[in-house]
Amino acid sequence: MTPIGFVESPIKKPVPPDEFRGVKSRIRVLHRFLPALAGLEEELRLAIIYRFHLSWGYSMKVHPRGDLNRPIRGVFSTCSPRRPNGTGLSFVRLLGVEGLVLAVIGLDAVDGTPVLDIKPLRYLEDPAGPDETKERGNIS
Amino acid sequence: MTPIGFVESPIKKPVPPDEFRGVKSRIRVLHRFLPALAGLEEELRLAIIYRFHLSWGYSMKVHPRGDLNRPIRGVFSTCSPRRPNGTGLSFVRLLGVEGLVLAVIGLDAVDGTPVLDIKPLRYLEDPAGPDETKERGNIS
Repeated sequence: MTPIGFVESPIKKPVPPDEFRGVKSRIRVLHRFLPALAGLEEELRLAIIYRFHLSWGYSMKVHPRGDLNRPIRGVFSTCSPRRPNGTGLSFVRLLGVEGLVLAVIGLDAVDGTPVLDIKPLRYLEDPAGPDETKERGNIS
Repeated sequence: MTPIGFVESPIKKPVPPDEFRGVKSRIRVLHRFLPALAGLEEELRLAIIYRFHLSWGYSMKVHPRGDLNRPIRGVFSTCSPRRPNGTGLSFVRLLGVEGLVLAVIGLDAVDGTPVLDIKPLRYLEDPAGPDETKERGNIS
């Protein structure tokens, strides 16, 4: 897997997850993928798959959110970066697209994080795919 | 990236996305990751990251859902398998966990698909993390 772009964020180092709440950041997509962004500007919310590039190796069990007060759990029942394959997933609100840059809110990835994929969340919410004539629902 | 398990599904070949709706399938996790599953049985819904192993290469633009009647779009505004890095993402309902096997509903991946990651969806829905005392909300 190779990055399709990188995160530009005011958060430069790992912080507790709650500190990412409401943070505005940007995804700068590599130039060669510009055509692949067409249509993204119509989306409200995106799923971003990225690599936890500051995390090496993994643990089978972790304290959720790195909080020692939370009982240890299997890593697949958490979002810990110390996971096999080191993949992060975040749901963001898309504020806008300008050329190669996506402005987003809610991306819990530090500055410089390699982005692996961008997907429209509404496809995932509704397996039948987007339908512009109806309200966007939740994923329940 | 290496698989952490594989999909066991009644759907053996790619089909239109709607045909996965309501399908029950299983994820058989590799033996060495058994400890990493601890706690998963408490989850209702999971995000599954997998590899589109039958898709080679990618297209910058595609018809959404392979439907030629839908206007062509940038691949990042679709869930097409013909995407850079070939990563699939699906939200599933967890029916149960038995040893190394997760029974799920709604996984749109064919039999034999390599699974890269399993995450609890409620962490992603609520950036503050799960809180057993409150209702699980939607991701809006």
